[in-house]
Parts: sequence; C-alpha cells; structure tokens
Amino acid sequence: MNTPSSLEELIKALRCLPGVGPKSAQRMAYHLLQRDRQGALHLARSLDQAVSSVRHCSKCNNFSEEDVCPMCRSQRRETDMLCVVEMPADLLMMEQAQCYRGMYFVLMGRLSPLDGLGAKDLPLERLLKRARELSCEVILATNFTIEGEATAHYLATLLRAQGLKVSRIARGLPVGGELEHVDSGTLAQAVLERRTVTE
Amino acid sequence: MNTPSSLEELIKALRCLPGVGPKSAQRMAYHLLQRDRQGALHLARSLDQAVSSVRHCSKCNNFSEEDVCPMCRSQRRETDMLCVVEMPADLLMMEQAQCYRGMYFVLMGRLSPLDGLGAKDLPLERLLKRARELSCEVILATNFTIEGEATAHYLATLLRAQGLKVSRIARGLPVGGELEHVDSGTLAQAVLERRTVTE
Repeated sequence: MNTPSSLEELIKALRCLPGVGPKSAQRMAYHLLQRDRQGALHLARSLDQAVSSVRHCSKCNNFSEEDVCPMCRSQRRETDMLCVVEMPADLLMMEQAQCYRGMYFVLMGRLSPLDGLGAKDLPLERLLKRARELSCEVILATNFTIEGEATAHYLATLLRAQGLKVSRIARGLPVGGELEHVDSGTLAQAVLERRTVTE
Repeated sequence: MNTPSSLEELIKALRCLPGVGPKSAQRMAYHLLQRDRQGALHLARSLDQAVSSVRHCSKCNNFSEEDVCPMCRSQRRETDMLCVVEMPADLLMMEQAQCYRGMYFVLMGRLSPLDGLGAKDLPLERLLKRARELSCEVILATNFTIEGEATAHYLATLLRAQGLKVSRIARGLPVGGELEHVDSGTLAQAVLERRTVTE
C-alpha cells in the first residue's frame, strides 16, 4: 500500500534494461519522478520513435532507418573486402581507427551457448548471401573473447566452404604495449604469429 | 552516418537515467532494439503512465496517485509520532522492520550542497505544517551519512523552534555486530551514547 501501482509498474518496466536490478530500477524511477519528468517523457518518446523506425540494413545488417544504410549505399567504399563484426559499436571503433574502407557485416551477436545464443540466432544466411554477392575477402573482426573466437572459427569454416578467402584480424601486443605488462596468453600468441622482418 | 538518428536520440535519452553513461546507454539501446522491443514499448508506456499519475501525498509527501495516500488515510496508524525519512525506500525499510506504527514525512532528498541541493529544495514548510498539525514527537530517521546528519541537525533546530519534541534514531553496533569488525567511528559513538543498564 506504500508504493503507487504506476510507480511499481515503472520500476518493473525499467528491469528490461540490461544490468538494471531491483535496486537500480527503484533509484531510477525515484530520480525520474522527483527530478526529471521531462527526461522521462523524452525517453518514452525516443523509445517509441526508435522502435518504430529502426530496422536492419538489408545489406550489412547494421541498425538503419532505411532498407539500405548510407554506408552500404556510399560510392566511396571499396567493395573488395567484407569485415564481419559482432556489434554496431565494433563497426564504429573500426571506422574511428580509419584503417578500413571496405564493406561491413554486423552479426548483432555472437555464438554464446551460455546465453542460449546458437548459430540459428545469427543471420548466417544473409552473411553468406552478401559475401557471395561481393565475392571478396572476408575479414573476421569478432572479439578475441572465447565467444568471439568460437564465432570466428565457425564463420571461417562456413565461408571457406563457399570458396571465399577468409582472414582474421591479428592478435598481438597493443601499440605502446610492454612485454612486462602484457598477459602471457597475448605474448605467447605474439611469438607464435611472429612476422619475418624484411629490410 | 553510421548510427540512425532515432537510435542516437534514444542513446542520448537513456542518459537521463542516474548512473548511465554513454557506454551503458549504447548497450541498453542495442539490447532493446535487438532483443526486447516489447520491453522498450512497455517501458515507454510505463514512463508516460507514471509521469501522468504519480504525484506527492499532501500529508506525507511520499509518491502517491491520490491527494492523500492510503497510509495517511489509514485509521490503523498512530498519530502521536512523525518519522522523517529521506526517500520512499527508507519508509519501506522502516515498515519492513515492523518497529513503528506512526505517521511519516518523506523529504524526497537531503541537504547536499555538493549536488546543489539546499534547504530551499526540501519541502520544509510542509513538514513544519504537518508536524504542527499532529503536534507530536518528530523522529528524525535520515541516513547516518554526512548529508543525512547535516539534514537531521538542520531539521532539529527548525522543529525545536516550534516547541516540538525532536528525537533521532540511535546509532551503535548493528544487531549481531562484533567489536572486532565494526568501524571505529561507530564503536566510538556506541560508547559515547551508552545506556545505563537497569535490572
């Protein structure tokens, strides 16, 4: 009887956000109602707007408001490489690094059996279709986590079976990295994947 | 050009939630759009509903959907004590402890100069009015943080000037607490505020 039902409902609804438990949801609801009702209404509008207008680009699977996103439509991108990343944030990082001018494919996930995400939850048909369409080198840029590595391995098998050239971004010491402070797994991999030094 | 504008807007809007920075906002937006669009729409509805129907009880200042909340209307509460707490969550804790059957007043905040919250941001007029109306003992149950203590001190001065009896909940070792593991500030206070043991 101490908490109004619409407040209780809001606290419950906030739990749909990842990483938000009962205590944070309560704190968020109190904050919005007490200090930021404008923000709450704006958030409600933005949720509606995003849900109704954001879908997936039919080429790269990234979030997009159009059938084909501006990047896939762009004439200034090279079409001889297709870079596969897990999430849109990874694509943004790649773009910030300014090291790549090719096309992308965003998986919107990874193989993660513990979270109940298997191969059927990834848009593999569409990735294969896009790779065949471009008939180019596919660069696997999934994370170097256990899940990311498993995903890369799975995709490599699938793509090579189509006769496509598949590569994986390099693992090694980071720029500015010191041997003393790097983890031994990374160091071992850097030694294993050493490159011949030419003049 | 890589992030649709309504997605960018949603990421920005999520930042109104306390404790949510740019990275979490992005993760939340991706999660909602990729895995829980139903949850997103439900959250939007709940925000609208709560903002339009939740206001403050005119007696205790707690969140309420009516002018006077069920607790203040209840015939089963004693009216000879008024307990002042900072937030609705504190009131819920008091009720769970089942140690108190009197009335409440919820400050919806505390004196916190660092967050720009001063006496003018607390509903002091309404607290004084309510205390005079009940003409009862006022129990200050703000937190034992620096801000909570400052708030209690400020309120005590204000309320005593009205000729009201003011008390503060006790500080000391928690139930089950061991001297070896308690912090020295609490221990010092427990010694200072020791009680005479009667037969």
